[in-house]
Amino acid sequence: MKPEIAKLGYISLVSADLEKSLVFFKDVIGLEETEQKDGVHYLRAWGDFQHHTLSIEQGDRGYVKHIGWRTKKEEDVQGFKELLEANGVPANNVEAWATPGIGSSVAFQVPSGHTFQLYYDVERPPVDEHRRSVLKNQTYKSWAKGVSPRRLDHVNLHTSADSSDTYSFMENILGFKMREFLANDAGDILAGWMSVTQLVHDVALVSRPETPTKARLHHISYWLDDSQDILRAADILRENNFDFVGPGKHSISQALYLYVTDPGSGCRVELFTGSYLIFEPDWEPIHWHESERAFGNTYWGDSITNKELVKETIEAL
Amino acid sequence: MKPEIAKLGYISLVSADLEKSLVFFKDVIGLEETEQKDGVHYLRAWGDFQHHTLSIEQGDRGYVKHIGWRTKKEEDVQGFKELLEANGVPANNVEAWATPGIGSSVAFQVPSGHTFQLYYDVERPPVDEHRRSVLKNQTYKSWAKGVSPRRLDHVNLHTSADSSDTYSFMENILGFKMREFLANDAGDILAGWMSVTQLVHDVALVSRPETPTKARLHHISYWLDDSQDILRAADILRENNFDFVGPGKHSISQALYLYVTDPGSGCRVELFTGSYLIFEPDWEPIHWHESERAFGNTYWGDSITNKELVKETIEAL
Amino acid sequence: MKPEIAKLGYISLVSADLEKSLVFFKDVIGLEETEQKDGVHYLRAWGDFQHHTLSIEQGDRGYVKHIGWRTKKEEDVQGFKELLEANGVPANNVEAWATPGIGSSVAFQVPSGHTFQLYYDVERPPVDEHRRSVLKNQTYKSWAKGVSPRRLDHVNLHTSADSSDTYSFMENILGFKMREFLANDAGDILAGWMSVTQLVHDVALVSRPETPTKARLHHISYWLDDSQDILRAADILRENNFDFVGPGKHSISQALYLYVTDPGSGCRVELFTGSYLIFEPDWEPIHWHESERAFGNTYWGDSITNKELVKETIEAL
Amino acid sequence: MKPEIAKLGYISLVSADLEKSLVFFKDVIGLEETEQKDGVHYLRAWGDFQHHTLSIEQGDRGYVKHIGWRTKKEEDVQGFKELLEANGVPANNVEAWATPGIGSSVAFQVPSGHTFQLYYDVERPPVDEHRRSVLKNQTYKSWAKGVSPRRLDHVNLHTSADSSDTYSFMENILGFKMREFLANDAGDILAGWMSVTQLVHDVALVSRPETPTKARLHHISYWLDDSQDILRAADILRENNFDFVGPGKHSISQALYLYVTDPGSGCRVELFTGSYLIFEPDWEPIHWHESERAFGNTYWGDSITNKELVKETIEAL
Repeated sequence: MKPEIAKLGYISLVSADLEKSLVFFKDVIGLEETEQKDGVHYLRAWGDFQHHTLSIEQGDRGYVKHIGWRTKKEEDVQGFKELLEANGVPANNVEAWATPGIGSSVAFQVPSGHTFQLYYDVERPPVDEHRRSVLKNQTYKSWAKGVSPRRLDHVNLHTSADSSDTYSFMENILGFKMREFLANDAGDILAGWMSVTQLVHDVALVSRPETPTKARLHHISYWLDDSQDILRAADILRENNFDFVGPGKHSISQALYLYVTDPGSGCRVELFTGSYLIFEPDWEPIHWHESERAFGNTYWGDSITNKELVKETIEAL
Repeated sequence: MKPEIAKLGYISLVSADLEKSLVFFKDVIGLEETEQKDGVHYLRAWGDFQHHTLSIEQGDRGYVKHIGWRTKKEEDVQGFKELLEANGVPANNVEAWATPGIGSSVAFQVPSGHTFQLYYDVERPPVDEHRRSVLKNQTYKSWAKGVSPRRLDHVNLHTSADSSDTYSFMENILGFKMREFLANDAGDILAGWMSVTQLVHDVALVSRPETPTKARLHHISYWLDDSQDILRAADILRENNFDFVGPGKHSISQALYLYVTDPGSGCRVELFTGSYLIFEPDWEPIHWHESERAFGNTYWGDSITNKELVKETIEAL
Repeated sequence: MKPEIAKLGYISLVSADLEKSLVFFKDVIGLEETEQKDGVHYLRAWGDFQHHTLSIEQGDRGYVKHIGWRTKKEEDVQGFKELLEANGVPANNVEAWATPGIGSSVAFQVPSGHTFQLYYDVERPPVDEHRRSVLKNQTYKSWAKGVSPRRLDHVNLHTSADSSDTYSFMENILGFKMREFLANDAGDILAGWMSVTQLVHDVALVSRPETPTKARLHHISYWLDDSQDILRAADILRENNFDFVGPGKHSISQALYLYVTDPGSGCRVELFTGSYLIFEPDWEPIHWHESERAFGNTYWGDSITNKELVKETIEAL
Repeated sequence: MKPEIAKLGYISLVSADLEKSLVFFKDVIGLEETEQKDGVHYLRAWGDFQHHTLSIEQGDRGYVKHIGWRTKKEEDVQGFKELLEANGVPANNVEAWATPGIGSSVAFQVPSGHTFQLYYDVERPPVDEHRRSVLKNQTYKSWAKGVSPRRLDHVNLHTSADSSDTYSFMENILGFKMREFLANDAGDILAGWMSVTQLVHDVALVSRPETPTKARLHHISYWLDDSQDILRAADILRENNFDFVGPGKHSISQALYLYVTDPGSGCRVELFTGSYLIFEPDWEPIHWHESERAFGNTYWGDSITNKELVKETIEAL
């Protein structure tokens, strides 16, 4: 049986200014710290159930080390290793718990050059009593500090490479389903929103021939429950002297968004709500034509220009 | 390979006063009518993708005829028929399109006495231009009238029967996963929230020995995107002289709720938002003890009493 | 004793396409019609207490006839006439009920060229039962249709004239208090937000030397109770194929805004919430320097450019 | 000319457990501390413009010392002293700055037994840079901690005395206008909502013959901008193990409410939004009949019973 991915797990981030990144992610965005080990800080939102959804450490420049994905079953980790190798993609075993909270995994590069790591086993450390939610189905108390998103939502990857290989790879090897896409007259997919879950996307891939290096991360995205949470986030960010793009609403995915950049790593964070869920097993991917790019990106509100989209990505290698 | 259910499909409802039910569901709740055929009205919310999520017709009393579920694959419909019969459960084929929009299906009773119908094939009729959304990924214009929920969410079933058989059946035959449950000291499950999707529940089953007939429906639930939509719904309902319970927040499922009853059929409708999604493949069902029943039901806000819970259910036969 | 103005009353609007204007104001914005007389339609929001807050009639072009203000006492109407004439400003008596719902009034031009009309006596026609709110302190049922604002909030006037005369006039003759203002190095006021109520502004006056005629109206503004109402309005407007500016938040007045234009009259409507109230009797006007214009206008979000501000005003004569 | 009150100023509170009260008001409600002097803590909300809107100090039991009101003009303070004495009400001068931030004032008892203090002069201490808002028209950064209301809104007083004297006194001597009231068949006012501002009430007075002492405070109220802020407050309070009443909506005043009690002083705090403003100079007080008491109090949602209303008041002497 084919191995399957269950969900996006975490992003492993390197910051050129760790102190700034920690203020940004912990005090302003409001993530909680699970643990700190060997100089790496492991963070998550109050409604994340896993050990961490973001790790940050000091480096000489900001970039993304890899992106973690959890498989549906334990045997899927080695199942993917075999499948990848059978398809000519080198895949390396990574020792269990080398990353705190994350069991044995398999690392490889997708054709776009981004590094993915697949794991199944996880550790779930208990939460200190004063930070623990009074709800049994929630990890931390909500609204403890800053913007206070509920959970990690998705990642948005940019690549300068021909991305048709990547789309095939994502669909055929990794099992992602295309949910919405933007294509030109020639039928080339310029951007695709794909998921293994019922979200419209766990990952978006955007072709940007002009990016300085092949594998870039446009943003990671954290989910908030209500539209007004995004407006409150805008107030909090301004009071803390952050520039941002939004609020606005995408036509593609129907999500309300706000984009702000971590001043330490250069990693952009999307604060995100709304959108819709896909339960239909025979979902027909929504086809947006290149001429609809602006409308697809911005149903209404403040929006990011194409120029900014490219300039503000960080390397994902 | 085991057949699988993809999603809750629709509720087939009989009303003692069709005219009142149509005013309630179309003007007050704000559902759209896909079509009317042989005296049956087929309704759905602006963000439902299927032909209908609710049908209503005139009868001499209000009750639920059956609940429709869509399978993951076409062959799953007959796959379930075989699986049911192999387990001693009679299952009948229902002719394709006997219910408009719904292909060939299989009907059977779960041990609690509720009738389920499984189908895969669907028809997707085009929407009139003046009601169609300007968004390609949305069926109707949103906010056209009334409360205006986005989509059908779940059903809540009550039974006077010993429900341990039903839980086994739901999990082992139909493939539902238990997400949260309430149990007594003896380990009997008093209520269970189960899903085949990443929602906390597509269906909840509650043991109510005191219900007048075995198979009852406590409520059907429509989803709204934002918490404030529930408050706006409260205003709309009061202006239309409806009584309701809520707004309040459940601890179990973390959902914001408001309950109002269709005066024609007696069917209770929950307006619903918030809650959380379950992406973890090894989700450990949240165990609530009987002593936590009140807190589990009401995290805060106006709540329904146990007495009302029973009194206001309608027969599901 | 000095006569005093109590509140902004109504805007008298002429449309080049009455039918379009009525669809816009009644169906999309969701105002209610009090009455229609001699080709003039009298509209108000569900929470307006007066006969109307907007009148519209057909003309050969779109413009504003005059802006009505209610005085604090009956004798203030003639009190203002005497005060105006004593200050060399011609003021004409207008017959009672010439405008339905509005008693005897006095009309005059402010130095910026805009026509104001002052009245005290009002008629309060009963509301049809099916449209009347179940609340004794509310005029119509809320949320009956469209965007559904609660009440008229303020007007924003533009003028190409030297506006120092107008500011003096507004403060010294009419009794408005300056709440916030934008000034250049020379101390010239470029824009002023003034009120007789505890709102930050009942009227804003902006100097725009480049406007084609002296007296222009930039926008009229209707109030909504919640931030999310503005986001819902954005959805409704897009579904009805309207372009708009916003949502965004002003620093000056701290209000959340969205601007959309009536296609019939060219009158721009601001949908408005948030802001703050001024209870302090010794309020020191907030001074914004010309260099802070952009920040003063846009705390965050989608914003209107200076160029658009001028282009989209309509004549107020 | 008659002296006039401009606004509610502050509440002077004594707590039986100061430490608990400070945790409640500063960390949970999220008020800021202007200063601490002689064991008294002076607090205010992020959008309050005055030195403080609440003071708290340790005592042997919880009670309200007095309620401060700011006059419209400096001379109004002595003007009220003369007016009070002319009406046989003893009034004492209180030295300027005896209460930090508050100039010379006049103290007296209203017939219900509550102590009011009138002042005009105020001190406005600068805010530390790291807590100051980036907005010139706002005192502190918003959303820094806890529930984070914008400003003080009103007080609700209970009395066991015949309250007709108090209503006359409030209207005729102090200049409050009745906005809404509840009366029995005999025409006795059982509860009245009165204001000097355009709010529906700066003060409510409720007759409760069964209260243990004559002058009681039912609650003080802080304003939040949006309905969802009240729902977020509910989450925050539950996470901090507080019981509360609400959310719900009053018919009288149309306000969304949530009531929670300071565990130190026993003072109940209403978190409050929505409601409406009264600009009409000839406002006809809304008359609710005793039979409409329940509907007047609760338009929808979780509500406080009459029994609790009485039990949970604290002495205001």
